[in-house]
Amino acid sequence: MPNVPAGGAGEVSGLGEFGLIGAVVGRFAVTPDVLLGPGDDAAVVAAPDSRVVATMDLLVEGRHFRRDWSSAHDVGRKAAAQNLADLVAMGARPTALLVGLGCPPDLPVDWATGLADGLADECALVGATVVGGDVVRSDHVVVAVTALGDLEGRAPVTRSGARPGDVLAVAGRLGWSAAGLAVLGRGFRSPRVLVEAHKVPAPPYAAGPAAAVAGATSMVDVSDGLLQDAGHVATASGVVLEIDTATLEVGQPLADAAAAFSADPLEWVLRGGEDHALLATFPPGAALPDGFVAIGRVSAGEASVLVDGVPATGLGGHDHFRS
Amino acid sequence: MPNVPAGGAGEVSGLGEFGLIGAVVGRFAVTPDVLLGPGDDAAVVAAPDSRVVATMDLLVEGRHFRRDWSSAHDVGRKAAAQNLADLVAMGARPTALLVGLGCPPDLPVDWATGLADGLADECALVGATVVGGDVVRSDHVVVAVTALGDLEGRAPVTRSGARPGDVLAVAGRLGWSAAGLAVLGRGFRSPRVLVEAHKVPAPPYAAGPAAAVAGATSMVDVSDGLLQDAGHVATASGVVLEIDTATLEVGQPLADAAAAFSADPLEWVLRGGEDHALLATFPPGAALPDGFVAIGRVSAGEASVLVDGVPATGLGGHDHFRS
Repeated sequence: MPNVPAGGAGEVSGLGEFGLIGAVVGRFAVTPDVLLGPGDDAAVVAAPDSRVVATMDLLVEGRHFRRDWSSAHDVGRKAAAQNLADLVAMGARPTALLVGLGCPPDLPVDWATGLADGLADECALVGATVVGGDVVRSDHVVVAVTALGDLEGRAPVTRSGARPGDVLAVAGRLGWSAAGLAVLGRGFRSPRVLVEAHKVPAPPYAAGPAAAVAGATSMVDVSDGLLQDAGHVATASGVVLEIDTATLEVGQPLADAAAAFSADPLEWVLRGGEDHALLATFPPGAALPDGFVAIGRVSAGEASVLVDGVPATGLGGHDHFRS
Repeated sequence: MPNVPAGGAGEVSGLGEFGLIGAVVGRFAVTPDVLLGPGDDAAVVAAPDSRVVATMDLLVEGRHFRRDWSSAHDVGRKAAAQNLADLVAMGARPTALLVGLGCPPDLPVDWATGLADGLADECALVGATVVGGDVVRSDHVVVAVTALGDLEGRAPVTRSGARPGDVLAVAGRLGWSAAGLAVLGRGFRSPRVLVEAHKVPAPPYAAGPAAAVAGATSMVDVSDGLLQDAGHVATASGVVLEIDTATLEVGQPLADAAAAFSADPLEWVLRGGEDHALLATFPPGAALPDGFVAIGRVSAGEASVLVDGVPATGLGGHDHFRS
């Protein structure tokens, strides 16, 4: 940690805006995609495909994370992960992040550097890095992340390409984050594996580009819940997505926590968000890439989601203004 | 405006997250650079140069704008302008914006759509558009903007290329935003031209790529104040920037307001931020592009800024945690 000037020692106000930026930029890797990194009016990032895939998420303290539950490193990893997941859900290779941090002047410098380390560590999982951003003062901590990626010559895999006859498949965990939130909400800190899953999702990064290579006809990042995100694909594609719950894996920690709370673990699996699994459709007969498990099929009809043949009602998931 | 469901009629909580997104995306132009617009996990934007220029700014209510001073349309224009200015300061052609909006549930829908219209209108000045973003709940209004641009085959114009002997030149207004803020801060609403300049900057967009074409050796967006941003260039380039104040235009509205407030208009010109003028250096003998006026020169020596031969002390400008 750099020397902290007098006045708010150990707090970001002591470093000032430019001191804070100086304290974090050295923590970000310089990858071959970084043509001009932090420190100028803008960054320059390689876009070898001549197209760039871009997505943005905003995380607000008290809504998307709690500083008493999650470390700064956790928040950094989560903020990066949910954006990187959006990129791989298009079949893209993530290249770079831009990060805006709004924070109160008394935020500990350690928190800001911990956030930077979390962002850097999550980026490192996919070979990406942070190339720029902004730091401003705000009453609550706000983290804005934009992620950029490259399509490597492939067509983007959108939500609108699912066709009747396709296989519906998922890669990654479902319901773990929701179960972890339930655990934390009841005042517990364990099972740790669920709490960790809530604090830091583990998107199946490699499965996204692999699905694109394998010919996936549609793909979505499951951020709002399986049923809700399946609903988005059904609507965009104008098809019916049929889910067979018998094929959905209910992890043992979920089953255990559900038993302890008298909850139905399948509800977490079907409606829990923030695990950032990938839901994709593949042409009939296509070999599913590593990590994908078939959970149903696509059929013709009015856009909807069927769960074991029954129309899903109240698709659940998260609406930021209604919960 | 779309129909507003019961519950928080006219407020964003009545529309919900997806309803709000639906109410704004139709306001954004579809330009040839938009290969996949809003509505999927991520957008796809053309990057014909095979590099993408990217920058992000965060605007926080009460720090960067006040809803009683600025309309939503003003805030949208300003949020777009300050990011677009960063792109043109690299010599890039702006292509696309991503916008994150954090807002309280009782925010009027009209405010959100006004913001979108302001973003769209400012983007239209440069042929860019909004391709994606995020909407979340927060106590105060927060606007995060990422802007993407294309270098059209040129090298980016950084802060580090100024060389002794270069001509120092500026395009755009200086001090107008600071004067407008002084007017508003004293409870006045006029001179309108200054107040408008504070609420909506007018960056000289075309001058950025023109400077790059003309061989500018360095360039910076004057967002923090002429002296402070000149200091950034001096430091990055390892040179002395000499400013002749006799060459700096003091607009009549500035002179009038300064007289009324017993202020020194040159202080606004030298230290006022947020006008988003462009400060650039050109090789000796280069023809300055339209809009640029020579205001001094680059000389050798320890990195510093001289004002009429005197070292500038306390470069002024804005530090988000120290003001």
